[in-house]
Amino acid sequence: MELSQYFPIWNQLTERQQERILHATDFFEPPKGTLLHNGSADCLGLLVIHSGQLRVYYLSEDGREITLYRLFEHDTCLFSASCAFRSIQFDVCIETEKDSKMWVIPSCLYEQLIRESTALSNYTNQLMASRFSEVMWLMEQIMWKSFDRRLAGFLLEESNLEESVELKITHEKIASHMGTAREVVTRMLRYFQNEGMVKLTRGTVLITNEKALSKLAHS
Amino acid sequence: MELSQYFPIWNQLTERQQERILHATDFFEPPKGTLLHNGSADCLGLLVIHSGQLRVYYLSEDGREITLYRLFEHDTCLFSASCAFRSIQFDVCIETEKDSKMWVIPSCLYEQLIRESTALSNYTNQLMASRFSEVMWLMEQIMWKSFDRRLAGFLLEESNLEESVELKITHEKIASHMGTAREVVTRMLRYFQNEGMVKLTRGTVLITNEKALSKLAHS
Repeated sequence: MELSQYFPIWNQLTERQQERILHATDFFEPPKGTLLHNGSADCLGLLVIHSGQLRVYYLSEDGREITLYRLFEHDTCLFSASCAFRSIQFDVCIETEKDSKMWVIPSCLYEQLIRESTALSNYTNQLMASRFSEVMWLMEQIMWKSFDRRLAGFLLEESNLEESVELKITHEKIASHMGTAREVVTRMLRYFQNEGMVKLTRGTVLITNEKALSKLAHS
Repeated sequence: MELSQYFPIWNQLTERQQERILHATDFFEPPKGTLLHNGSADCLGLLVIHSGQLRVYYLSEDGREITLYRLFEHDTCLFSASCAFRSIQFDVCIETEKDSKMWVIPSCLYEQLIRESTALSNYTNQLMASRFSEVMWLMEQIMWKSFDRRLAGFLLEESNLEESVELKITHEKIASHMGTAREVVTRMLRYFQNEGMVKLTRGTVLITNEKALSKLAHS
């Protein structure tokens, strides 16, 4: 379990740079539900994820949420070091959705290194472009995909991540992921239930017809 | 009229890098309405804008548009060199909205230089972060701001850009900017007209009560 195996451009750094990273980096094991980054209040550093699952979400000024993307093992989390980029004019929050393990390269060291290493700076560009792409994909969904199809897609994605057709998730929580109101989610889930695609019990959504949900999601 | 005065990190480049840029760069004067970049089909290069106005918009697979942001003099256009970033997984189009003048630093040279110069690579990061911020702002508007307020804001912004209260713009064009259907725009403009905020004639929207529009936009 070595940082060098998880950090994509490790071999493009100088030996001295590698040493400085190893010296300053902590290994960190936050349990599920830990808030790692809370907008501009935090600037922990670059997170190199060994295992687990992170959720990166946008929080509006009046407290509404939408999930932007998830990060998994071997991913690098950039916005936890957002203070390195004065041009970032928006705040995101980052939380663990499963017990996770990660290396933290402190922001101050990361800021120094992107000024020295074109490899690291260019890798940062690629990371930023990847996240940008995920947000553009999401915007397209929001703009032009109806809510029933987005919800069907969300339930299938959750089922895939949890490796279960029984999702332990509240309507409130689904609403936060999707950036909408709880009532909207409840109404649509009841429609799905009437159509035989899910079965609802308190705090649980059971997928009963994956094929129909999938057809809807891709319609 | 020197590129060195328009390219923000000029003085952080080596003399040799400056020479290579000057040698390879063209000055270009596309008239209003020129399509400079059409998704992944083009990769002109980094555009350093001397004067004019560019519109960067997203085009969905089925041909729907939404304006992401505008660029003006002294801005640098990054996505016209998107082939430099394999992680960019979305296509945008870029067109001139006014007669414009700009320098074009070819993509191949730009790609070489970001591998050599941390200054240029970090500047690229800041550019990407700026554009990302504009798209996040837009997403927040789309998610949580009602269409009447968005449209009021759009009309005021256009009026500001054109320095006129008489906007020569079709409902179809407004719909493309805002990522919606023409009918939705027409319906809302008629409502605005009934409220005395605009007066509609063929191909023109005349703002008759700027104060009321502004109040709506910021409500």
